[in-house]
Amino acid sequence: MRGHDLAALRRLNTIAVLRFLRSQGPGRPQSLSQLAAATGLSRPTVDQVVEELTAQGWLTEASEPASGRSGRPARRFRFRGEAGRVVGVDIGLHKVVLLLSDLAGDVTATEREEMDPDMGGAERLAFLRARIERFLDEQKVRPEELWALCVGVPGIVGETGRITSVIVPEWSDFELARRLGESFPCRILAENDVNLATLAEHWQGAAQLADDVVCLLIGHRSSCGVLLGGRLHRGHRGWAGELGLHRGLGLSHAHEVLGWRGERRAGESEVAALARAAGASDPDALEILDRYATRLAPGIGALLLAVDPELVVLSGGMTPAGEALTPLLTRQLRDVALDVPLHVPRITVSTLGEQGVALGAVRKALDSVEALLCDATGPLPSVPPSMNR
Amino acid sequence: MRGHDLAALRRLNTIAVLRFLRSQGPGRPQSLSQLAAATGLSRPTVDQVVEELTAQGWLTEASEPASGRSGRPARRFRFRGEAGRVVGVDIGLHKVVLLLSDLAGDVTATEREEMDPDMGGAERLAFLRARIERFLDEQKVRPEELWALCVGVPGIVGETGRITSVIVPEWSDFELARRLGESFPCRILAENDVNLATLAEHWQGAAQLADDVVCLLIGHRSSCGVLLGGRLHRGHRGWAGELGLHRGLGLSHAHEVLGWRGERRAGESEVAALARAAGASDPDALEILDRYATRLAPGIGALLLAVDPELVVLSGGMTPAGEALTPLLTRQLRDVALDVPLHVPRITVSTLGEQGVALGAVRKALDSVEALLCDATGPLPSVPPSMNR
Repeated sequence: MRGHDLAALRRLNTIAVLRFLRSQGPGRPQSLSQLAAATGLSRPTVDQVVEELTAQGWLTEASEPASGRSGRPARRFRFRGEAGRVVGVDIGLHKVVLLLSDLAGDVTATEREEMDPDMGGAERLAFLRARIERFLDEQKVRPEELWALCVGVPGIVGETGRITSVIVPEWSDFELARRLGESFPCRILAENDVNLATLAEHWQGAAQLADDVVCLLIGHRSSCGVLLGGRLHRGHRGWAGELGLHRGLGLSHAHEVLGWRGERRAGESEVAALARAAGASDPDALEILDRYATRLAPGIGALLLAVDPELVVLSGGMTPAGEALTPLLTRQLRDVALDVPLHVPRITVSTLGEQGVALGAVRKALDSVEALLCDATGPLPSVPPSMNR
Repeated sequence: MRGHDLAALRRLNTIAVLRFLRSQGPGRPQSLSQLAAATGLSRPTVDQVVEELTAQGWLTEASEPASGRSGRPARRFRFRGEAGRVVGVDIGLHKVVLLLSDLAGDVTATEREEMDPDMGGAERLAFLRARIERFLDEQKVRPEELWALCVGVPGIVGETGRITSVIVPEWSDFELARRLGESFPCRILAENDVNLATLAEHWQGAAQLADDVVCLLIGHRSSCGVLLGGRLHRGHRGWAGELGLHRGLGLSHAHEVLGWRGERRAGESEVAALARAAGASDPDALEILDRYATRLAPGIGALLLAVDPELVVLSGGMTPAGEALTPLLTRQLRDVALDVPLHVPRITVSTLGEQGVALGAVRKALDSVEALLCDATGPLPSVPPSMNR
């Protein structure tokens, strides 16, 4: 075998070990024998790869001994999530949410701030940039420690990161990722917000057990994300799931029938009060939700008829009323089809609350780091000195 | 290596050679060196596998010598499509189309027959059975030579072959495949007609170069098929693409604006006359097609917003008018989205004519045979003696 073939083979072995340890997560360190079995590599090769990756700061030995075995406990290793950081951002019209995560997906800091919905495009970009800088500063993240930053936006995002926004008009035909790249020296990604919410539900939320999922972001705005075969289905130009833009289906006006004038406890949001009243079978609350379900059904029904998913997840501002809405929506959806009752899949409610989009941004940022670590055509990147213990 | 491991390995080697030769098609026989290179098997292993498969009747040596090389020409081998037959059927309300193909996808016979649209469910089943029997008889196909039979039907077909039909009401909740299995001792498959048309367009039609495709069957009925990543997307219960069933989108009524009262040549269909007039810029013809496009746009637009394909194929009864319809439909589709013009992918016209559905049925039948030949958990099936030279 020639020299450069040997180097390529060593890189492939590194990738096999890294990929497996990352898939196991930080809580499941693996022994050298387990690594050999899982990767198909010989034990001496695994020994060598693990030694190198540990020296480089990518792996670390787990301190806890392996359980349930007699004799000397086997040494076990895990991926060092501490080798770097990623940031996931959700920027909408009214608020920005920021999450800081290590490279193993462990979220260590969260920030949320209200925004003036009338803020212009340039001002909004400056605001976003300043909030990310302050967040990194407060969390003591040095620039070289940040591996990737992903921003979720309300709008269609093309393959190159170019946004078509109908929510922030001045961000239409706007290359957000490139502009942020002027301030942050790391991989910068932009993605449609509901697409990220969909990724998050599959990663840590209500859709962990399903691979063909439609995620509905419902509230003042309605938008949908599609996951097929466990992967985000963006479509050819990033338009997949954008039924909210359909002129005739009325998803964009559905929220107009909402508005709860009944009892509201101190600090309770309008949606929460409506959900509580509906939960107590208040007829006015149920009627509002049924009218809302009637408005949602044509658009959601069209999406179900297009992709026929296994599971539907309700997320977004209306999430607190999701439980009360589900049976009403299921009934309205059945009537969407002519001649036969529409097959309505299971509908479930997001468990991620307001952090769904930002968490999905973390996931997408992590995926881009993984692609870098596991790119056989390039060398393994170095851990920044400040992150190498 | 233990005995049964060796047998399993030999089966895997057989599969690698068969799969590669099938992918190359009958017109591209391969030398033993080419087979070794493509499969990663050693030359002695390839020699042995090819010898066995040839003795069993699955491969044959190509008679033409390899071109462009001096010296003794290398022996080259191809998959023996003659080892068996499959039948693809398209049964609608008005007609049945049957295609006979060998196992390499070479169609050798076609039959088409009109049907009384008012035929009842039991009578229709008997008619279908009799037509298939007569077709096999005329083509001198013995029962053991038929490997698979696939029938395309207008209706939703579940994973187990159970039909939900809105076109042939008596075929609703009907297990067509199981009933045909009583007459034909081979693999029997049922599939939605437009799903099969979609497969056919990807295999031999207008969508050979695209992997994310929406195929529209338009005419008296409108229905859609979805292909994603080169594979048919059936959805969780076989409903994917059924936008024609949406109560509010009007696809099922779109054809009502059609009806051409202008000049019609002898033997020319109404659609062909309409298409010819539109091609000559007849304003009445163009207005009819524009009204039709306006009726189609909400439903097709919903499908585009759901899956955002790379290519749209127009097929079905309106195919002759497809060229004239395309620019009108593209313009109407752009207006489907609120606030921003909808991204409309390239729209193209089916090149398969009336045989699309039956050809897709051949493709699906061939896929089921391929799955059998390449199922590592079972033995390689035997070629029927009458088909083994």
